[in-house]
Amino acid sequence: MRVPRNLLFFLNDEDDFFIATHVNPEGDALGSSLALSLALDAIGKRSVLFDRDGVPEFYRFLPGYEKIRQQYDSLALSDSNLLLLDCNTPSRAGIEGTTFKRSAVIDHHETESEFGDIRWIEPQAAATGMMIFSLIRELGVELTREIAVNLYTAIAIDTGTFRFGNTTSEVLRVASELADAGAEPAVISKYLYETWSVARFNLLRLALQTFELKGAVAFTFVTRQMYRMTGTGPEDTENFSSFPRIARDVKISAFFREIEDDYWKVSLRSKGDINVATIASLFEGGGHKNAAGYFVRDSIESAKESLLRALSENSSHQWGTE
Amino acid sequence: MRVPRNLLFFLNDEDDFFIATHVNPEGDALGSSLALSLALDAIGKRSVLFDRDGVPEFYRFLPGYEKIRQQYDSLALSDSNLLLLDCNTPSRAGIEGTTFKRSAVIDHHETESEFGDIRWIEPQAAATGMMIFSLIRELGVELTREIAVNLYTAIAIDTGTFRFGNTTSEVLRVASELADAGAEPAVISKYLYETWSVARFNLLRLALQTFELKGAVAFTFVTRQMYRMTGTGPEDTENFSSFPRIARDVKISAFFREIEDDYWKVSLRSKGDINVATIASLFEGGGHKNAAGYFVRDSIESAKESLLRALSENSSHQWGTE
Repeated sequence: MRVPRNLLFFLNDEDDFFIATHVNPEGDALGSSLALSLALDAIGKRSVLFDRDGVPEFYRFLPGYEKIRQQYDSLALSDSNLLLLDCNTPSRAGIEGTTFKRSAVIDHHETESEFGDIRWIEPQAAATGMMIFSLIRELGVELTREIAVNLYTAIAIDTGTFRFGNTTSEVLRVASELADAGAEPAVISKYLYETWSVARFNLLRLALQTFELKGAVAFTFVTRQMYRMTGTGPEDTENFSSFPRIARDVKISAFFREIEDDYWKVSLRSKGDINVATIASLFEGGGHKNAAGYFVRDSIESAKESLLRALSENSSHQWGTE
Repeated sequence: MRVPRNLLFFLNDEDDFFIATHVNPEGDALGSSLALSLALDAIGKRSVLFDRDGVPEFYRFLPGYEKIRQQYDSLALSDSNLLLLDCNTPSRAGIEGTTFKRSAVIDHHETESEFGDIRWIEPQAAATGMMIFSLIRELGVELTREIAVNLYTAIAIDTGTFRFGNTTSEVLRVASELADAGAEPAVISKYLYETWSVARFNLLRLALQTFELKGAVAFTFVTRQMYRMTGTGPEDTENFSSFPRIARDVKISAFFREIEDDYWKVSLRSKGDINVATIASLFEGGGHKNAAGYFVRDSIESAKESLLRALSENSSHQWGTE
């Protein structure tokens, strides 16, 4: 990965930086921002860190996380330089309309705009954290334990801890160097994957009891009654839709979450080339190819049937019947 | 990791090998055996592969798996040399009583006996696959894609795809080299984590229904009745012991698998510094700090109680009571 020379000059020439990342941040956004801020500290630069939505509780093990602000005084920033990380438009970071001296974008997502005086976009990078790793090397900054923990987390989360298709040998080599610098893979994994409440685990167990396989479509659901039984809420259902993917025969997982009587949020997850965004759009929902969703007012049984019908009508495959 | 010279001489001097690994094999046992066999092929040696229980269906993506036999003619082996992998007593492999010309043990488990003319035991190694990687390097054998897939699988499964405490920078560096040699992390992960049979998924759902939390100890179990209900068997329970770790409050997960009436295999998984190998040894079992097991003849309730008692008596922590 080649770090643009003009980005290096920019970081060396300027003294004040405002590091912003996307709203609803996850490990790559947070870890990349914190690592870059620590590196700028090391070369004597000032930086302010901003995320509109703050740091979710289970990311509060990241060294320096407490420096991330949720508010800023936009008038004071005209002499500061924006570093926009893990996204590429100011609106994704909730900073639209703010004027900066100059701005640089560092991101691995496909670009949506031409924003930024300096633009470093690497859609092939597994994580923005991989780019920040290269940048920190180019800056000649020592890889401290604090930087390593942030970058390891960034890379771990965006590769599903080295399970997704973006896990290259380079990703593993960088992870190895970060571990040498003091990032502890097991400790970080524990923070990322082993911090569910028992209540949430109990809700998952109830949800898995509702598992029903129709052809290649797995159905699971949770009801408001289940929340009451376990002392949980809708926020505890995050990622529940992914669990049935473990079964080989499951090509689509449809998870129904009860909002009120006969009113459901449906989350669809698919494997490989199956596009569930087009299915969701038939129900006025949306999303990505492998992860989409919609709302439906119906009984659960009838809602399942209408989903199976939509799937069959929109492909040559008889989803519910084989 | 230093490969013993006498093991290298042994492999170079002899021509016929019998590679055996433990019953109820998992990825490290199978991947290590297959990789070593492929390496012996490359230096012109003959090897026979044996596992009494055969290759579980979802490991049948491992290059060469079809060469693993479930039977052998013990009389024909007196001129053959035993390579015992990922275990260190003949009984663990179901080959007790068979006479070999010479024998070598290659294992990362704590030793239980002094068996073997040549003994290479590395309890610090994350996987036997890590040892085979070093050995193959020393033999000067090219790291083919077939060898790399087997070793990557071995290392991935024993480190929980780089999430367990044994995930060192060296493990990640070796994984990176194996990826360079053609192992595809995402493809292997899909085989390991998304190819369960629906029957196995149904067995997991039943096992999770038995979840019981006593203090920081999570208990789950499967019975032979559950196998019958779901059309599964003992080999389908691999990794079941890990699931309750997702909950923050679970420090130890104890999974009981019924073998016959009031006879159980107990798998222990712990987090952090909790050493379950010492607990397992109290029941004449063994394993590693964070993953160990033993057999017990008792009712399930009484067996749970005796485990809780052993935990409390062997630490200052009152495991079952907080």
